[in-house]
Amino acid sequence: MTTFESIFVPAPLRDAVSDAAWIDAMVDVEAALARAESRAGVIPVAAAEAITAACAESSFDVPGLTEQGRASGTPAEPLVRALRARLADDLAHYVHFGATSQDIVDSAAMLVTRQALGLIDHDLVAVESLCAGLARAHRDTPMAARTLLQQAVPTTFGYKAARWLVAVHAARARLVVLRTALPAQLGGAAGTLAPLGDAALEVHHLFAQELGLAEPALPWHTDRLVITELGAALAAAASSAAKIGVDVALLAQTEVGEVAEAEPGGSTAMPHKRNPVGAVLAGACARRARGYASVLAESVVGEHERAIGAWHAEWGALSGALAFTGGAAAAIRRSLDGLQVDVARMRANLDLIGGSIVSGAAGVLVDRALEQTGR
Amino acid sequence: MTTFESIFVPAPLRDAVSDAAWIDAMVDVEAALARAESRAGVIPVAAAEAITAACAESSFDVPGLTEQGRASGTPAEPLVRALRARLADDLAHYVHFGATSQDIVDSAAMLVTRQALGLIDHDLVAVESLCAGLARAHRDTPMAARTLLQQAVPTTFGYKAARWLVAVHAARARLVVLRTALPAQLGGAAGTLAPLGDAALEVHHLFAQELGLAEPALPWHTDRLVITELGAALAAAASSAAKIGVDVALLAQTEVGEVAEAEPGGSTAMPHKRNPVGAVLAGACARRARGYASVLAESVVGEHERAIGAWHAEWGALSGALAFTGGAAAAIRRSLDGLQVDVARMRANLDLIGGSIVSGAAGVLVDRALEQTGR
Amino acid sequence: MTTFESIFVPAPLRDAVSDAAWIDAMVDVEAALARAESRAGVIPVAAAEAITAACAESSFDVPGLTEQGRASGTPAEPLVRALRARLADDLAHYVHFGATSQDIVDSAAMLVTRQALGLIDHDLVAVESLCAGLARAHRDTPMAARTLLQQAVPTTFGYKAARWLVAVHAARARLVVLRTALPAQLGGAAGTLAPLGDAALEVHHLFAQELGLAEPALPWHTDRLVITELGAALAAAASSAAKIGVDVALLAQTEVGEVAEAEPGGSTAMPHKRNPVGAVLAGACARRARGYASVLAESVVGEHERAIGAWHAEWGALSGALAFTGGAAAAIRRSLDGLQVDVARMRANLDLIGGSIVSGAAGVLVDRALEQTGR
Amino acid sequence: MTTFESIFVPAPLRDAVSDAAWIDAMVDVEAALARAESRAGVIPVAAAEAITAACAESSFDVPGLTEQGRASGTPAEPLVRALRARLADDLAHYVHFGATSQDIVDSAAMLVTRQALGLIDHDLVAVESLCAGLARAHRDTPMAARTLLQQAVPTTFGYKAARWLVAVHAARARLVVLRTALPAQLGGAAGTLAPLGDAALEVHHLFAQELGLAEPALPWHTDRLVITELGAALAAAASSAAKIGVDVALLAQTEVGEVAEAEPGGSTAMPHKRNPVGAVLAGACARRARGYASVLAESVVGEHERAIGAWHAEWGALSGALAFTGGAAAAIRRSLDGLQVDVARMRANLDLIGGSIVSGAAGVLVDRALEQTGR
Repeated sequence: MTTFESIFVPAPLRDAVSDAAWIDAMVDVEAALARAESRAGVIPVAAAEAITAACAESSFDVPGLTEQGRASGTPAEPLVRALRARLADDLAHYVHFGATSQDIVDSAAMLVTRQALGLIDHDLVAVESLCAGLARAHRDTPMAARTLLQQAVPTTFGYKAARWLVAVHAARARLVVLRTALPAQLGGAAGTLAPLGDAALEVHHLFAQELGLAEPALPWHTDRLVITELGAALAAAASSAAKIGVDVALLAQTEVGEVAEAEPGGSTAMPHKRNPVGAVLAGACARRARGYASVLAESVVGEHERAIGAWHAEWGALSGALAFTGGAAAAIRRSLDGLQVDVARMRANLDLIGGSIVSGAAGVLVDRALEQTGR
Repeated sequence: MTTFESIFVPAPLRDAVSDAAWIDAMVDVEAALARAESRAGVIPVAAAEAITAACAESSFDVPGLTEQGRASGTPAEPLVRALRARLADDLAHYVHFGATSQDIVDSAAMLVTRQALGLIDHDLVAVESLCAGLARAHRDTPMAARTLLQQAVPTTFGYKAARWLVAVHAARARLVVLRTALPAQLGGAAGTLAPLGDAALEVHHLFAQELGLAEPALPWHTDRLVITELGAALAAAASSAAKIGVDVALLAQTEVGEVAEAEPGGSTAMPHKRNPVGAVLAGACARRARGYASVLAESVVGEHERAIGAWHAEWGALSGALAFTGGAAAAIRRSLDGLQVDVARMRANLDLIGGSIVSGAAGVLVDRALEQTGR
Repeated sequence: MTTFESIFVPAPLRDAVSDAAWIDAMVDVEAALARAESRAGVIPVAAAEAITAACAESSFDVPGLTEQGRASGTPAEPLVRALRARLADDLAHYVHFGATSQDIVDSAAMLVTRQALGLIDHDLVAVESLCAGLARAHRDTPMAARTLLQQAVPTTFGYKAARWLVAVHAARARLVVLRTALPAQLGGAAGTLAPLGDAALEVHHLFAQELGLAEPALPWHTDRLVITELGAALAAAASSAAKIGVDVALLAQTEVGEVAEAEPGGSTAMPHKRNPVGAVLAGACARRARGYASVLAESVVGEHERAIGAWHAEWGALSGALAFTGGAAAAIRRSLDGLQVDVARMRANLDLIGGSIVSGAAGVLVDRALEQTGR
Repeated sequence: MTTFESIFVPAPLRDAVSDAAWIDAMVDVEAALARAESRAGVIPVAAAEAITAACAESSFDVPGLTEQGRASGTPAEPLVRALRARLADDLAHYVHFGATSQDIVDSAAMLVTRQALGLIDHDLVAVESLCAGLARAHRDTPMAARTLLQQAVPTTFGYKAARWLVAVHAARARLVVLRTALPAQLGGAAGTLAPLGDAALEVHHLFAQELGLAEPALPWHTDRLVITELGAALAAAASSAAKIGVDVALLAQTEVGEVAEAEPGGSTAMPHKRNPVGAVLAGACARRARGYASVLAESVVGEHERAIGAWHAEWGALSGALAFTGGAAAAIRRSLDGLQVDVARMRANLDLIGGSIVSGAAGVLVDRALEQTGR
């Protein structure tokens, strides 16, 4: 559905949120469950070993599994069947023991998210570094500040870049916090962990440990704040990249000419054009990310112990929010990398409204931004 | 990005909005442009024939083209290059003559939309038929009306189905209107059709004719109402399917038990469960469709003659809105097809609050609904 | 909740969607219902006359009624009580006969919408007229077309204005269609018109007639497409105004200087600033209108015969969408009224990239736009 | 614009986000600015004292100021004029010294937010307390868990309430964090604090101190993450209340009958109805809050040093998000306060699908929830 997605989303991120990545994560979750249960004495060690081995075998038929998932409305049910088919009859029933589909899909969603957030963070760090470089290099380069697109009073380009830096840093910091707290999901059919008996809480703990995810106080199958907050934080991060994009595209206007992307998009018909493609793509990606986040914002309101649709709408929306936030980060990184800054033009534009060049505390605020963000 | 999309979207619709379908449509647009231009005497007949032949050759390297599209932020630029490479040097420059990337992508979007709307319509018609069948069969089957989820006064199940019918019919009618009016896009670099000289308006006319699309009064590269209205109408249609889904899921509750889907989703752990999967998937699809529509709602506000991001965000959002609206239609069709109606249970539930069974004008209103929708 | 609403929304429109206007409309609906019922012989003529008189008396205690509405979650219940209290005991029970709260509120919503759409249309017509004036006056005024904010090839300012015209005209046309079809709502507690007996359909017909609203085939209490479509069409109209605003603000940039609003916002600190306040407010209003429309987009999906919240969320969101669409129209009218166009600057900017001035079919397309929109 | 707002929003919260409250806050900001500047030696002590006195005088003409704000697109400009008019000529120019409109409005927005969040928190704490009470009282009350609205396996009502508690607690905790960090805004026309000279950073510090707001590293006029995050967190909190509402309304269904609100909404026509009005209003409020949050989600992407519309759209959207989140909290508090729980009915419904009552670790998880939330 994401038409021309490779224009927008870097390949590693496309892979990280692909069906194959989700299925791989679900397989990892089943294996972790088996190990946690065997460590807690709920299932035999031999079963856990066999399940882990079956999970590690060759990969599954991803398109086949998802097609089959249409019947039950979840990809977990066919996966469990496929996994059981790999095991001897006396061990097969230990697969997925005590779990429900949502446990597997939600925990897998957290693994996918962790992986994708890592990729996104990599690009956001690079963006911060580029902003910091511009802030430092142009700490005292005068340019016009513009409010409501009218020249206001002088500022510096370094200060503009410093504010980009601070905004991206804050948006990234939020994602880092959320990434650290990604919770495992295990509750069983009703969230009561009923089939696990006295070992329930121990399995709950070990399961999270096996996955390297946080152990929540309670199963969160009915509490989708985690998902909603991820959506909002991703959209905010994408938008902070898009904000830079708007500024770059405005500064790159033919009549302004203060910056130009190092690798602008050309036009066969119009050789003079230097399209700020990175800036443009960042803007497009942020719009898409906000669209996905709007779906995730509704997730919190669901019926009883599993919602009639809100949950199912999360999977693709979460993948989409991750992918396009990463797309926004990569695009603005491209935009800023090697950005050509025309200091003379900045000065000339500033002279349009005359007046002396007083940029106030801009320089000190740049220093503060660099210090606060550890740059 | 649409994780597990085959759970939600029927295969023909997935194909209809795929990258390959978009590229095919773009190729058709280039061929139509060449033919229109040769008919108007702007380019040689031989050029148009050669271009048409080149377009009809084997298919293009879709992943390669989209990857290359990252540089210029549009898939049209690499496609034009690939197409020109298939032609002799003296004819190559007639490819894409007088057009801009947006002409190709927008016109292709309309072709993709036309095809996808056809598929969606097929399922919506089937849904209407199923609703009409239920309305007719249960014209006088008493059941409780429920407001704020409290039993109110009696109604009939036929009347409930008749209102589903009327709603889906209205939503479908809007899509039919929009489908008929899908406009071709041809304006050239600035919308002025400048390179086409005196033949500009004739080419504009013939181009639309070649594509079987409507000819707009003006190029609409800066007027995205068409896109926004498509998004809104698709989301409304998906939501009208989801409304049926909510009612079905509520009626299928264990404690209500008035309907059951013919092919409910089972549960290995809980054999008694009869999950209304069609209803659930319709709800999920509508949420996703609304998310895409929210992106398209912003399209109208763009900068000058081509927006910095709003346009690029349309492609995948339009595909997504089409796909998930079709998914909603297919899912609710599945839900209603063979729906088991427990007339006795309807009556028993109605007796919970006592009182006589008076369903007012319900029967006559059913007749009216059937008549109005031509059923 | 609409902080500083008088900055954004013209006073007549604020009045038109105020609580008082809604209560007035609800009173009109109750009176129309009584008259329709007496014409159909369902209630005595004397009752209808008394009710009409009671409705026409002095106005109701609006804040009191809405405060009381908190208990039942609807303003209709306290209004019916207040109205009955104005009547003799033997006539009081004829008030609201056979109706339910939703009948009154929904029908009133249509009356409020009709009134507000009239005000909005007035401003949109003025905007069209201003666009047409600019299109005609500057039919052949060369200026740069800009794609991705880079100068592309020449166009004319008249053609730009013509496209504004066509877009606003199309958005307005959609609102006109919807306004003509605003449906009365009458269904009684379950939509079956049960208490009205054999006269049900006659009352249904006369009621719509009394209100001057369209008679729908069926009560639409469960089919909220009307509401959703209004939201989408309003947001699209507001956005078409905001699109003009973006272009104006970009053209008004200090470095571009091609247009200036006649009454720009000043700044005590910066006397040189000429803030394009109309353009800015149009943009703000469109954002708000889209926010309200997103609420209305969810209305279609509701539970059974009255939704648990989706319906209640409509009232303020509909008022808001109307108000801010009107705000956007008024703001862009202000922006365009007396717009100062610097033809020399347009030409000078165009010279930045050199080349000859060829604006293709721009002039003819302007003529076509004027003709198509009847200007 | 918020039709019938008193049905949805408690009076204190309506007051807290009213125009009058915003103007009061703006006045407080101007006074704080003057005091900070006099403490830093930028303006005379006498000026600060006179300004503080003028601010403390009688209140301002709120409707007049906002009407006048239409000209400049901001309420700050007329307020500054009105304030200056209260001062002697030689002191008037010290009002608003070095500040820009956005400094005043943004800082006031933070004061309004702080006040409103306090009111919201009060209701959310009460909701937590009610949830905790239900969790404790019904720790071991068996009931059916329901997934996809089908009975799954047994759980306990206490565990359901415990998950409500945990969700509301988490949503509230996020708001508490954001409230603590609400930043003062002071940057001057371009964010450089230019007119304040060497005292710039000292004034920046003292200004935040005077207002009791956090001092940000940099002015945040171009970095709207604060606003976007507030919107998202408010919508999430409102939605966590709405989630409880959905569950309550479903449990209160005539056919389920497991709970009833203590003060249900009645119906004159249908005395048997017990409408779960609190639950319904919570759902409506959350929809509205999400609509406002969607506006605020776009705030991050703005043009240069002040956006052409995104900023202006924040004011009412922020007020709305605050008001309706408070409305959701108050409504669900009403819903849960005195909630009637029918333990026998819960048991009877559970018997519908037979089987033994095993609620697994539900009890221990309740204990954990109570402990984690400090209840």
